[in-house]
Amino acid sequence: MLSHYYGLHRTLSPAGVFPQPAWSLDPSLPIHPTELLVDIEALHIDSASFTQLKQEANGSLDLLTSKIKNIILDRGKMHNPVTGSGGMFIGRVKEVGEQFADPSIRSGQMIASLVSLTLTPLSLTKIKSIDMVTGQIEIDGHAILFSSSPFAVLPKDMNQRVALAVLDVCGAPAQAARFIEPHHVVVVLGAGGKSGLLTLAEARRKVDQSGIVIAMEHSKNMCKEVEALSLAHHVCCVDATNPVAVLEAVSDLTDSELADITFNCVNVPGTELSSIVATRDEGIVYFFSMAVQFTSAALGAEGIGKDVKLMIGNGYAPGHANHTLELLRNSPSLMELFTRRYGS
Amino acid sequence: MLSHYYGLHRTLSPAGVFPQPAWSLDPSLPIHPTELLVDIEALHIDSASFTQLKQEANGSLDLLTSKIKNIILDRGKMHNPVTGSGGMFIGRVKEVGEQFADPSIRSGQMIASLVSLTLTPLSLTKIKSIDMVTGQIEIDGHAILFSSSPFAVLPKDMNQRVALAVLDVCGAPAQAARFIEPHHVVVVLGAGGKSGLLTLAEARRKVDQSGIVIAMEHSKNMCKEVEALSLAHHVCCVDATNPVAVLEAVSDLTDSELADITFNCVNVPGTELSSIVATRDEGIVYFFSMAVQFTSAALGAEGIGKDVKLMIGNGYAPGHANHTLELLRNSPSLMELFTRRYGS
Ligand SMILES: NC(=O)c1ccc[n+]([C@@H]2O[C@H](COP(=O)([O-])OP(=O)(O)OC[C@H]3O[C@@H](n4cnc5c(N)ncnc54)[C@H](OP(=O)(O)O)[C@@H]3O)[C@@H](O)[C@H]2O)c1
Ligand SMILES: NC(=O)c1ccc[n+]([C@@H]2O[C@H](COP(=O)([O-])OP(=O)(O)OC[C@H]3O[C@@H](n4cnc5c(N)ncnc54)[C@H](OP(=O)(O)O)[C@@H]3O)[C@@H](O)[C@H]2O)c1
Repeated sequence: MLSHYYGLHRTLSPAGVFPQPAWSLDPSLPIHPTELLVDIEALHIDSASFTQLKQEANGSLDLLTSKIKNIILDRGKMHNPVTGSGGMFIGRVKEVGEQFADPSIRSGQMIASLVSLTLTPLSLTKIKSIDMVTGQIEIDGHAILFSSSPFAVLPKDMNQRVALAVLDVCGAPAQAARFIEPHHVVVVLGAGGKSGLLTLAEARRKVDQSGIVIAMEHSKNMCKEVEALSLAHHVCCVDATNPVAVLEAVSDLTDSELADITFNCVNVPGTELSSIVATRDEGIVYFFSMAVQFTSAALGAEGIGKDVKLMIGNGYAPGHANHTLELLRNSPSLMELFTRRYGS
Repeated sequence: MLSHYYGLHRTLSPAGVFPQPAWSLDPSLPIHPTELLVDIEALHIDSASFTQLKQEANGSLDLLTSKIKNIILDRGKMHNPVTGSGGMFIGRVKEVGEQFADPSIRSGQMIASLVSLTLTPLSLTKIKSIDMVTGQIEIDGHAILFSSSPFAVLPKDMNQRVALAVLDVCGAPAQAARFIEPHHVVVVLGAGGKSGLLTLAEARRKVDQSGIVIAMEHSKNMCKEVEALSLAHHVCCVDATNPVAVLEAVSDLTDSELADITFNCVNVPGTELSSIVATRDEGIVYFFSMAVQFTSAALGAEGIGKDVKLMIGNGYAPGHANHTLELLRNSPSLMELFTRRYGS
């Protein structure tokens, strides 16, 4: 029962392991009563994976096409064996299993998966086109979601590419909403990126006049874009890999009180200590960045005797997709920026 | 001021970085008013580092001695450049800086550092002996602690080696004490090791008759040792790298309610998903193990839509050393086991 919930019945090899670490899955039909069947419109390949595959194919579209085809045929999922990463898909629901966990979903609805392609059974009939810049691939085929797999119905009131950019990081503001309190000093590192901007917007609506929101970005251009949104009380141009600079900036702005909670939304390595020193004792460091090293965070805090709670960003929270789409709808300037950046 | 607190004035190269990531430190005297000077009695080299150095020296004591000497002379700290790890020291306080953060410490007291040797300025006069089994090295020389560096006064009422084994992992039960509530279902993975046993003992004194403590270990022998202590309500012989087995065991014992909080104290990789599936939605997974991969934990939870709080174990908490020594003193059977295992 639990094993069907998590899709273990789809694992081919090695037998008995979870679908994500498994080498290969069985995407064949019919679906199990606990599953959802989806006709795929497009795969959004994770950028690390797509870059690696393009290099391996020397930029040749034909070679790339056959490489992707081979991975899917071999593994029953789009799980790049070199980078270990996947991506997400969009498609139309074809069949809802009788015991599927979310009975509100209907055949015909357009959805985006919020679970990695590395654990999604996928059957390919034809690759129709590959966008060599974005990693978006139009295919004919089907995917299967388990009852444990998060997904979102695509909103009808916004550009589809904008919706996808937002859904990709929708865990960040949803988690932020749970931890930020009205009086908090909130620091966001990498505040100009997708997850950073949404976290800023969340912080801004959560804190009251007793709280402070501090945005940090390294490039002048990004800082200007963030400033124009008026979501942060302060915008600092600082390199998040430089703990001394980050500490000085946050100390100055907070009368040495430091942050109650720091969100790390940077996409480069080496930012653990900056996040830790920016945060007051008993405060929270929330690492959304996937470039964080577990040991650097643990030993970094211990090494300077800093009593902070260190949290690994969980990309899933109940209702995270609707939460974050709603946040964007309520912030016209942010919607305008996302549409300009990601909408075409 | 903050920079002295964290010891940045001791960094030689690269200039301006924190002592831990720095290549080399300046261990010269006199000390800064914010520092503590300690005459070293012994270094306890981290086991990963010691194993690597012994291999590189082909087991030769002379070669090993010169390798360790060279690292300390070159870097001004015992920071193994291959493994990146350090260890801890014990020694006698020689001088307390006027502005040192903890004014209660006195010259002549024996202390253990609770901060990694990878950020501790160290000056070596002579290597007196090396224990090829334990990695304990007797030296003449001095070390410097910053105001931000945690340390503990060595207790007089217990075997010194037992105290060191306990102090090495004293963050675990101290953190556990903050998160466990009386009604909690607590799971401890790797419950037979140093941090696992102490976490079990903490759990046992925190939960009341409405709570349950579940210990998990993989070897039969370890399970027997844990059972004999009567610290857990249930002891399961399960491999922590097998999420299916862990899930089934915890489901069975909890009527499918799962754990409110799971502590991962295992010393091998590949245990992230087991910790996550063992835990109920909105529960806490506390990763004390250093073998945890950040991305495996984050994507593992997201991939199965599991709404758990994922926490990186912070080895530091205020008062953690006394807290944990006290825990051991109050548990005679645990003291007996630690003395038997680590006391000679
Ligand atoms: N946990 C999850 O489920 C999940 C899901 C999606 C993404 N993520 C992770 O979250 C992180 C952010 O994702 P994203 O989509 O928001 O990325 P993004 O849009 O690329 O944003 C990253 C931001 O960090 C900035 N940055 C880069 N280097 C910096 C530095 N040294 N100092 C300060 N800022 C710096 C970038 O600025 P420039 O553009 O000017 O360099 C950019 O604004 C990534 O690591 C990603 O893997 C996690
Ligand atoms: N965050 C910090 O500051 C900090 C400080 C110290 C240590 N740590 C980390 O905490 C972890 C535990 O440290 P420790 O000193 O307590 O280690 P330890 O004493 O060596 O204990 C590890 C335990 O895990 C058990 N184990 C190994 N493989 C297992 C498996 N597949 N399933 C179930 N149990 C298994 C071991 O049993 P066997 O002996 O039978 O194999 C042992 O009982 C390590 O990863 C260490 O790096 C963190």
